[in-house]
Amino acid sequence: MADTLSGLQAPAVGAPAVAPDLRGWTCPLPLRDHPRVVMGHGGGGAMSAELVEHIFLPAFGGRTAAALGDSAALSVGGARLAFSTDSFVVRPLFFPGGSIGDLAVNGTVNDLAMSGARAAYLSCGFILEEGVETALLGRVAQALGEAARAAGAEVVTGDTKVVESGHGDGVYINTSGIGLIPPGVDIRPQRAEPGDVVIVSGEIGLHGVAIMSVREGLEFGVEVRSDCAALGGLVEAMLAVTLDLHVLRDPTRGGLAASLNEIASAAGVGVLIQERAVPVPEQVANACAILGLDPMYVANEGKLVAFVPREHAEAVLAAMRAHPLGARAAVIGECVPDHPGMVVARTAFGGTRVVDLPLGEQLPRIC
Amino acid sequence: MADTLSGLQAPAVGAPAVAPDLRGWTCPLPLRDHPRVVMGHGGGGAMSAELVEHIFLPAFGGRTAAALGDSAALSVGGARLAFSTDSFVVRPLFFPGGSIGDLAVNGTVNDLAMSGARAAYLSCGFILEEGVETALLGRVAQALGEAARAAGAEVVTGDTKVVESGHGDGVYINTSGIGLIPPGVDIRPQRAEPGDVVIVSGEIGLHGVAIMSVREGLEFGVEVRSDCAALGGLVEAMLAVTLDLHVLRDPTRGGLAASLNEIASAAGVGVLIQERAVPVPEQVANACAILGLDPMYVANEGKLVAFVPREHAEAVLAAMRAHPLGARAAVIGECVPDHPGMVVARTAFGGTRVVDLPLGEQLPRIC
Repeated sequence: MADTLSGLQAPAVGAPAVAPDLRGWTCPLPLRDHPRVVMGHGGGGAMSAELVEHIFLPAFGGRTAAALGDSAALSVGGARLAFSTDSFVVRPLFFPGGSIGDLAVNGTVNDLAMSGARAAYLSCGFILEEGVETALLGRVAQALGEAARAAGAEVVTGDTKVVESGHGDGVYINTSGIGLIPPGVDIRPQRAEPGDVVIVSGEIGLHGVAIMSVREGLEFGVEVRSDCAALGGLVEAMLAVTLDLHVLRDPTRGGLAASLNEIASAAGVGVLIQERAVPVPEQVANACAILGLDPMYVANEGKLVAFVPREHAEAVLAAMRAHPLGARAAVIGECVPDHPGMVVARTAFGGTRVVDLPLGEQLPRIC
Repeated sequence: MADTLSGLQAPAVGAPAVAPDLRGWTCPLPLRDHPRVVMGHGGGGAMSAELVEHIFLPAFGGRTAAALGDSAALSVGGARLAFSTDSFVVRPLFFPGGSIGDLAVNGTVNDLAMSGARAAYLSCGFILEEGVETALLGRVAQALGEAARAAGAEVVTGDTKVVESGHGDGVYINTSGIGLIPPGVDIRPQRAEPGDVVIVSGEIGLHGVAIMSVREGLEFGVEVRSDCAALGGLVEAMLAVTLDLHVLRDPTRGGLAASLNEIASAAGVGVLIQERAVPVPEQVANACAILGLDPMYVANEGKLVAFVPREHAEAVLAAMRAHPLGARAAVIGECVPDHPGMVVARTAFGGTRVVDLPLGEQLPRIC
């Protein structure tokens, strides 16, 4: 605004008015192929991992490494806390089954739930684009407040910034969350071990296909609604069976394939999936067939994948099926000593194929 | 990107592909003048307060009200925590005395310090614009990591999103922070009371003028450097004198005028300032004279204003002056029973003037 008044041009992207001192900062080798950030760096796949490994970990040091899970586990004043952050840039802001307001709550609540913590407190930071309708902002805030109440979390602190038109996209939201990890619970990707049973809490691919259908104006017969939901209650039901859950993960960006690969890699184990056992709804399968996508890579916002010790698997599965958000839970595979760090799927035809970590994301700005 | 590929236009701002249901949401009266968000809504003044009061508080309910301070005070598992969030959209990304990386740490660390908490853990969420140089991102991350280490805080969890070129501005950062509030400490705006001495920790207006000078390409004789710094250590030195500090506030957006007005309003007290006692550096005074600004409204990023019981004021001032970040601390006024909710300044000529809450911000995107 000040720039407009003085008739000056806004500085170009990446060209700050005061040139940063780049001495002492050598671009790490894998990133040299990408002198500039591309959409794939935000996709939650291999390119996102490169940014973390080669830029953020060296810069932030030490404890950041622990944060490769969905949330960090901290000791504060005798309590064990889970702490997590997510920014939301989904487009469009409203979609069948939810909005950026629901997503901003459920995304962070679910990250906390994946360490066994029930979300207690949320922060909320808005970056608004000049010109967005205040009524629209009001509706987003209302959805956010309702989702927080539904998840049993309180929004306790916030911040609002406004950027000039053309430097944002309506509404961006960051939420961070704090939850208490119950005593005796130690859920993290590194705990996956051969023999663990892999359970998914329901049908996959709904969020990604819902976003895609409204963004591209596609019709797949029936309206596909996002599965956006808070998973804290489902996780509590699972913990009521046993505190010894090994790994929980919500397969958002990059889908089930990305989550399974991250777990296999963190624990140094193999994961073997029975492709036929993965619950894919018909409309997701149809949409993926039309678009040439693999449902294993499509984002979910109300599902989790669990690695459970074999002796507890049956009881945990029953508890999940008794919960509304786990009614269609299914065993989809197991953790194996073979092919450490790799995810392999047995296909419907009896062959096997490697399920790779996706490079970027099939669809940008899914959350 | 998907839009580009399919030849579809990106949806316009405020025009989501799925029309939000606006039934049941009536635009509150004061906001009817602003059917759309304008830059001033992000300025930390009266317009920002309207968004909070009429949109966010009704939507989020209950505890959010407590968050009108710089951070929320929470009880978690027996510990008293401060929790705060801030998004940073400063332009340019690098400026004399700092960068968005320093600012993202110090802004959140200082919000926690204003409740007496030493920042322990930080989250960090990046929203990157496609096309930003990875080397620039690396330099920002390095600055952020260094600032965190200097403040004694650890970055423990993070997130990265990428938006298409033209929907961001290089790098936006959200940081949230958690700190432990020491037992016996209860620092909040509501505790200001008549008789309190008002102390500012040093010279005001440096951050705002530094940003303004590089953004507008102005020269004011000497280079003005931002005062961007982490105030946790200074607050600890003050608490070593007495745990009974009433109010601390870091006068960022809206400057000293906004902070004093918020305190006067929250506590229902009057604030009387001696204009001559407010430390304004010569280069800030000169720049403000040229630009027609009032230094009381210019942003700071390494200063605090304290409301201290009279009996402790002298010792607290001495402790501040013994700390590098408080060397130029000064008593600038007092809390009075007159004109509750108002800030009045006694001018250099012996008259008085009302120091209003600014409406928006003189300079957008200062932090």
